[in-house]
Amino acid sequence: MKVTQKIAQCERENKIWWSFEYFPPRTAQGLQNLLDRIERMRGLGPEFIDITWNAGGRTSELTAELVKTCQGLVGIETCMHLTCTNMPKEKVDIALREAKNSGCRNVLALRGDPPMGKEEWEAVEGGFVHGIDLVRHIRREYGDYFDIAVAGFPQHQTLPPEEQELEMKYLKEKIDAGVNFIFTQMFYDVDIFIDWVKAVRAAGITVPIVPGVAPIQTWNGFQRATSLARTVIPQTFSQALEPHKANDEKVREIGTKLVAEMCRKILNANLDIHGLHFYTMNLERGTKMLLEELNLVPRMETVKPLPWRQSLTPTRRQETIRPIFWANRTKSYISRTENWDEYPNGRFGDSRSPAYGELDGYGVSIKQSREDALRLWGQPSTFAEVADLFVQFCVGKLDALPWSDQKPLKETSIISEQLARMNSLGFLTINSQPAVNGAKSNDKVFGWGPRNGYVYQKAYLEFFVKPALLTLLLSHIERDSNITYYVINKRGDLRTNTHSEGPNAVTWGVFPGKEIVQPTIVESVSFMAWKDEAFELGQQWARVYDPDSDSAKIISELMDKCYLVNVVHNDFHDADAIFKPFFQAGEEYRASVANTPNGSVNGH
Amino acid sequence: MKVTQKIAQCERENKIWWSFEYFPPRTAQGLQNLLDRIERMRGLGPEFIDITWNAGGRTSELTAELVKTCQGLVGIETCMHLTCTNMPKEKVDIALREAKNSGCRNVLALRGDPPMGKEEWEAVEGGFVHGIDLVRHIRREYGDYFDIAVAGFPQHQTLPPEEQELEMKYLKEKIDAGVNFIFTQMFYDVDIFIDWVKAVRAAGITVPIVPGVAPIQTWNGFQRATSLARTVIPQTFSQALEPHKANDEKVREIGTKLVAEMCRKILNANLDIHGLHFYTMNLERGTKMLLEELNLVPRMETVKPLPWRQSLTPTRRQETIRPIFWANRTKSYISRTENWDEYPNGRFGDSRSPAYGELDGYGVSIKQSREDALRLWGQPSTFAEVADLFVQFCVGKLDALPWSDQKPLKETSIISEQLARMNSLGFLTINSQPAVNGAKSNDKVFGWGPRNGYVYQKAYLEFFVKPALLTLLLSHIERDSNITYYVINKRGDLRTNTHSEGPNAVTWGVFPGKEIVQPTIVESVSFMAWKDEAFELGQQWARVYDPDSDSAKIISELMDKCYLVNVVHNDFHDADAIFKPFFQAGEEYRASVANTPNGSVNGH
Repeated sequence: MKVTQKIAQCERENKIWWSFEYFPPRTAQGLQNLLDRIERMRGLGPEFIDITWNAGGRTSELTAELVKTCQGLVGIETCMHLTCTNMPKEKVDIALREAKNSGCRNVLALRGDPPMGKEEWEAVEGGFVHGIDLVRHIRREYGDYFDIAVAGFPQHQTLPPEEQELEMKYLKEKIDAGVNFIFTQMFYDVDIFIDWVKAVRAAGITVPIVPGVAPIQTWNGFQRATSLARTVIPQTFSQALEPHKANDEKVREIGTKLVAEMCRKILNANLDIHGLHFYTMNLERGTKMLLEELNLVPRMETVKPLPWRQSLTPTRRQETIRPIFWANRTKSYISRTENWDEYPNGRFGDSRSPAYGELDGYGVSIKQSREDALRLWGQPSTFAEVADLFVQFCVGKLDALPWSDQKPLKETSIISEQLARMNSLGFLTINSQPAVNGAKSNDKVFGWGPRNGYVYQKAYLEFFVKPALLTLLLSHIERDSNITYYVINKRGDLRTNTHSEGPNAVTWGVFPGKEIVQPTIVESVSFMAWKDEAFELGQQWARVYDPDSDSAKIISELMDKCYLVNVVHNDFHDADAIFKPFFQAGEEYRASVANTPNGSVNGH
Repeated sequence: MKVTQKIAQCERENKIWWSFEYFPPRTAQGLQNLLDRIERMRGLGPEFIDITWNAGGRTSELTAELVKTCQGLVGIETCMHLTCTNMPKEKVDIALREAKNSGCRNVLALRGDPPMGKEEWEAVEGGFVHGIDLVRHIRREYGDYFDIAVAGFPQHQTLPPEEQELEMKYLKEKIDAGVNFIFTQMFYDVDIFIDWVKAVRAAGITVPIVPGVAPIQTWNGFQRATSLARTVIPQTFSQALEPHKANDEKVREIGTKLVAEMCRKILNANLDIHGLHFYTMNLERGTKMLLEELNLVPRMETVKPLPWRQSLTPTRRQETIRPIFWANRTKSYISRTENWDEYPNGRFGDSRSPAYGELDGYGVSIKQSREDALRLWGQPSTFAEVADLFVQFCVGKLDALPWSDQKPLKETSIISEQLARMNSLGFLTINSQPAVNGAKSNDKVFGWGPRNGYVYQKAYLEFFVKPALLTLLLSHIERDSNITYYVINKRGDLRTNTHSEGPNAVTWGVFPGKEIVQPTIVESVSFMAWKDEAFELGQQWARVYDPDSDSAKIISELMDKCYLVNVVHNDFHDADAIFKPFFQAGEEYRASVANTPNGSVNGH
């Protein structure tokens, strides 16, 4: 979505909005950390994020890659910087094309700083000379596909009047060339900023102005940033901060209050400015403190429009429904459905035909290196020891399992005791959700979707189980007419008690003025596709170990002999009912094998 | 659906089933009465009905018409009788083609009785001679599209052995020609029936046998039917019934017990027979008493698979969603969407483009004759008198309004007081439903759909209102962020507070193993189409009266000046919230016009 659309939407809803800027990091580890941080900071509710272009080119492909990842996997609207520095026209076009393919609709067009080691800016052969040339080029080549932003310099208010006028003339020309909004450089003197905004408006420029706000994180950082950009620092700032310059904690605390005060002044200055753009410097803390100080809490819709993360690439934006099987493995789902022409929009049944991608694609492998795996999971040598790892995961004492990249979701903690008990009884759970009978859509744990709605879930469990225990379980399950299940083995023999081919909606929401949204489903076609992946992940875990080791043998045997089962309890009014047959069957089984010294996978 | 599929489904679910047979009546009034009765008796839960063919031809088109109406408008699976009597091949083909077009998939192929006034049966020129010829013809021409039934005669067990054998040979030949099941003629001697079934099975016939059961309704009727068909009457029957032959009530009472006992014996005789076909003789009482005596209550699914009546014609069978506007006018909706190629299946959004048929079609007129109208509604001459008619309708004291063919639904009675108050305040309601927060799907009042489900409704109101009162109402409505509305006038100026074009689901159900079903919606495109009809019905009401009369003027002015409004309260947890703005605005308005002696449509 375009930034100006976002701005308009927030204005309609009378809401203050904010956005975050990041820069491409220098190392691979830095990249992973940044992505994790962007993902976490998404929870702070930015309407969009902004990725800078790194003059000098080494990281320019990284910018495009970051934009792609943020749009496609993180699912957050992104604005891409693009500079003329060291950029022949061809490279500009590649960057724009990639941005478009990623679903990015916003470009900040800059001339850019001189490349590293050069004092003076000069255009490359066949490149653009001025920012305005880049603006014109984007408009010419891409019509109105992109929102184009340019930088605004409040600091220019401190120039001599004739220079001020000249700069304003340049800005007006750029706007007239087709610019949609202005990001300002950082500033700390709010009066200078307000003056400048008035001057911009007086020059006949009407596009939205987005003030760039740099949280004060440390004394040194503050000094470096302001001196580099020759930012005017108000006396109040220096007087309040300098006495504490050795104490970063204190600097951040005072700085937060100062900058927050500045932000309040901007928002209350009748400038028709209702949004703030934060220069995060790839740091989380300062921005978070500032938002808290300003009492800015994310719009629910911004944070969680659906219970799972949406991809914002153009082809996938309409996707509103997914099988629950990949709930813990978003990336592999996106990768395995990459070649679909259309994504299920409201009804999965309509799009069940497209084939799922092969297992050799990106994402269908355990995330852990051999070292990680050994550290996390040790060397289990019996079924009981394997089961214990699952128990540890359920109670939050283990960070990952081969089937889950992350710790259990907050909502699962509500049933963590029951899950732990199931696992200790031999049902190795790899996915689950508790029943929810109409939580408010802004509920902290279960909520998603627009305001004033209600969300629902049917209880769901997915697990590996030994054949003998499965038989016992099914005899108990069949006493409860509200349970539907699918059982499958590695070979693909499917067994179910459902009568229809169609999907079972297990998560849905009811919202004002809308159709019922049913974003998560269980059904057989996708379960078959998931099955391969689920068994493969277990086999990969086995291959972490020496083939002759007990660990390799027990895990491999488990994957060969166990069944993968999913169970839905369809009465979402009864949150505990789903566990009953498991506890009953599990206890019976335990009693029956009490005399067996060492439970093999085949059971008794 | 084919009868054998219905039978198989009931057997899977371990359920006793039943069906009703009707014959085409002789008069137009009789036809209307029969349709009303079929509609009512649908509530008794027959899996299908069966329409006889009238030998002699006069009513043969009527059979086809009845089949079409039952499939398409009543929405009940139908089996059509077809006889060879007086039927040249061309007429047979017309009947089959029409049946197929109506969605009928079951034909009972009979030779038939000799036509009226003839003793001996004879084939017409170019017609079929034996039932088996008709069976072969249907199979040849229609493949396996139709289930073909033939008649079975348990009475044949009383014939001499060689005749028995011959008849059984004929039956076997017919079965081998492609018959799917057997309806038996009526009988009262259960032992004869059981013997005959065993003989049928011994002859290698394996298709389902459906026993034909004739309730005993009056002594004379019983005598006439049994003597006509030479039915063996067990002594127990005669002994129990004859003493009461002058008392029909008593005959029915005793007869019900006798026939019920016979039915129990059949069902418990280990014959693999789990269904009963009732010869209703177009009467309701006897069949109803028999079902009650047998403790046979309809399957919920049979009675109400969706909250509104489904049409079973081939093109419409997949229809699972409808705009709420026609809730009280099913026939006009079906007629106005007759030319649609596809009907919304789960998502109305997908099928919003098809144009609604014109208003001049069948059904888009008030049902009442001028006499009915005058009797029902008298000659209201002020707005208050018109409003009072709406009040009377809400509290059940008036049988119909131009916008509703029938009395308010049972479920509406829950809010009848509030509706009456609304109308007395000047909001002339023509449609409504109360909020329902998860009633069981077998709930007597609100239930629909498969077992073990939950059904929901958002509160809905639709009404005509004067401009001044509307203005006041909207100011109150806008204080409740959970209310969405559409306002339209006769000219088609639409006003809404909804932000999306999409439908608002106002009735939905959650069922085991299924997607969420959302059969009733509110949205603008269909509201626009309904608007024409709603205003037209009012104008037709006005035209009932002399153009110069006060009644004509007030109603016509009402249609010209009033707005048609629909309102949804999106928080279905709060059943009363929808009425608040109406009561507030209504009372304020009443106070403000207290001094106006005669409220005109324009208000003050």
